[in-house]
Amino acid sequence: MASLSCNVNAGLSYGGPGKPRRMVAVRAETVNPGIRKTEDKVVDSVVVTELAKPTTAYCRCWRSGAFPLCDGTHLKHNKATGDNVGPLLLKKK
Amino acid sequence: MASLSCNVNAGLSYGGPGKPRRMVAVRAETVNPGIRKTEDKVVDSVVVTELAKPTTAYCRCWRSGAFPLCDGTHLKHNKATGDNVGPLLLKKK
Repeated sequence: MASLSCNVNAGLSYGGPGKPRRMVAVRAETVNPGIRKTEDKVVDSVVVTELAKPTTAYCRCWRSGAFPLCDGTHLKHNKATGDNVGPLLLKKK
Repeated sequence: MASLSCNVNAGLSYGGPGKPRRMVAVRAETVNPGIRKTEDKVVDSVVVTELAKPTTAYCRCWRSGAFPLCDGTHLKHNKATGDNVGPLLLKKK
């Protein structure tokens, strides 16, 4: 599938009363399309002594259905976009 | 700053020899713009018993200069894009 992706964010910022700055096209991409969007910043904490399994995978693609845990959705995301994101693995030893 | 962001990915996929399928606009955004792009999938492991500090922040915005660790770059990213990503905090207790 041939694909062309363009991400443009045109913004006009004011340099103070009555003095508009030059229009700047800024390339801005969000990372998190839909997880906990009512929160200003999505931060998760893990007390590592409470980890149950020898290895626990935490999501970094922001598309897991089990966020903050990884559920493998990054595979589908990488395939669809050519990206190369993967999880953070916490290992007990 | 007033901003309008559009993400469009136009693709044409073929339904087999000589039969082009309908043009489909697919919204596909990469998460990782530039970290370790030669790797098929960027996976990091942490042996939690080797954590040095009481709390260690791991990057989930894929823009940290200290990746896989967090260096606060998500603040700049969130401000520029209206996103709300933040780190994963590993706590020793």
